[in-house]
Amino acid sequence: MVIETYFPVRYAETDQMGIVHHSVYPVWFECGRTEFIKHFGITYDYVEKEGLLLPLIRLTCEYKTPIRYGETALVKTRLLKGTKVRLEFGYEVFSMERNFLCATGSTEHAWTGADLKPVNIAKFNPELYEKLIPLYNSI
Amino acid sequence: MVIETYFPVRYAETDQMGIVHHSVYPVWFECGRTEFIKHFGITYDYVEKEGLLLPLIRLTCEYKTPIRYGETALVKTRLLKGTKVRLEFGYEVFSMERNFLCATGSTEHAWTGADLKPVNIAKFNPELYEKLIPLYNSI
Amino acid sequence: MVIETYFPVRYAETDQMGIVHHSVYPVWFECGRTEFIKHFGITYDYVEKEGLLLPLIRLTCEYKTPIRYGETALVKTRLLKGTKVRLEFGYEVFSMERNFLCATGSTEHAWTGADLKPVNIAKFNPELYEKLIPLYNSI
Amino acid sequence: MVIETYFPVRYAETDQMGIVHHSVYPVWFECGRTEFIKHFGITYDYVEKEGLLLPLIRLTCEYKTPIRYGETALVKTRLLKGTKVRLEFGYEVFSMERNFLCATGSTEHAWTGADLKPVNIAKFNPELYEKLIPLYNSI
Repeated sequence: MVIETYFPVRYAETDQMGIVHHSVYPVWFECGRTEFIKHFGITYDYVEKEGLLLPLIRLTCEYKTPIRYGETALVKTRLLKGTKVRLEFGYEVFSMERNFLCATGSTEHAWTGADLKPVNIAKFNPELYEKLIPLYNSI
Repeated sequence: MVIETYFPVRYAETDQMGIVHHSVYPVWFECGRTEFIKHFGITYDYVEKEGLLLPLIRLTCEYKTPIRYGETALVKTRLLKGTKVRLEFGYEVFSMERNFLCATGSTEHAWTGADLKPVNIAKFNPELYEKLIPLYNSI
Repeated sequence: MVIETYFPVRYAETDQMGIVHHSVYPVWFECGRTEFIKHFGITYDYVEKEGLLLPLIRLTCEYKTPIRYGETALVKTRLLKGTKVRLEFGYEVFSMERNFLCATGSTEHAWTGADLKPVNIAKFNPELYEKLIPLYNSI
Repeated sequence: MVIETYFPVRYAETDQMGIVHHSVYPVWFECGRTEFIKHFGITYDYVEKEGLLLPLIRLTCEYKTPIRYGETALVKTRLLKGTKVRLEFGYEVFSMERNFLCATGSTEHAWTGADLKPVNIAKFNPELYEKLIPLYNSI
């Protein structure tokens, strides 16, 4: 399962090299996994209301070729790994106009309670876990 | 009373025009008024712990001449107006290197509770209000 | 002529008050006027390639009620004023979900050359000016 | 050689989890390496004027424990590896108040010309390379 999201480059996202600043890609990744989760009928908003958070514990990004203003970034998101305590997502960033792979990345997340302490989602909120099983099975 | 804060331009704050993006100035203003409040012995952090918030209700900024990477922005913050329900701050942004006024701005804020509903600070938290009287008197 | 653009709130755009940070609205405005210009067959990208820039000289924003994660901001952009040296845009920001006007704003811009010095667009680039006449007439 | 830089958390850098958003750390890293380079008598500004750029090709960040508003991030930057075509920096992010290691990270960069095509700095600009030898030797 791969979810595609589109990001027309915002002028504010460029820097004086004339390219999208590297700190923007993690924001695109975040939007990508939001849509990924939503695809399974769960909004991240709802996850938070259920008392769970999914903060980052690791981020990687490889920048192969810059993306520029006037282009639209296509981000392909998939789940790489899922346990009851962690989720890992992978991302590919394409220039839609150039049909070219510009960057790849990954993020690893811990399930935590509102206090940001790690939890086992299956124990902490079995009902939500149940709803997320199709997401876990998407690998 | 005027409080000075310094912001070496971050590369991420530039855009492809080669200047600091206009959306950065409100962030500098925010840091400027944080320091302004701190000067009176109160951290904004503490304000929030006391159950009060100070969200923006109005922002203005006039951009006279751009600021570039390699420069340091000097922001001069002062209180323009203060009532028990609102605060208004004024800002001047200088290029430290060029000793030149590059922008001016203002922000108006409402005192609210944690629910973002407007409150009268003197009634809502008289103790905090007491502590802020020197700030109110700084005009 | 009013152009509508949609911005699902990005998690990165929230702050610890649990609302969209006020510095995000100018970024939405920027995307709104980009789409406004594009509606008239001109990309801002193309404008820059023609040697013209449109930096901000003034920004105002009134925040009536906060927008939160899980909501989509609908920005309605229109041209308020247009001369051969300046453009002024107006913006209304709605919560799409609540069908509620959350903020209004305006930005004023100067036509400049690549050196950020003001120019008269009709003299500097009559051909581009010609193409923009429908935009000027949209008021 | 380790260079220390300090970043009082900006309110705008928090998200609705009440912590610094993960996309801020790469910005801190950028400021950290700017100061690192400056320590050797070269501003990044000057590097760009010499026709060289240093875009990211890889970013990693491990988030161990969140940093919050009210805290100051201390970033310790060092050079991990340096060749004539690439530089790699390492970062440690501490909470100054808690004297605690909160995150670690690394960035890898390619030397490029203004066209963002990779170059060998020693061939492209031997004079600048000469000036940077103490930096290269800082490992």
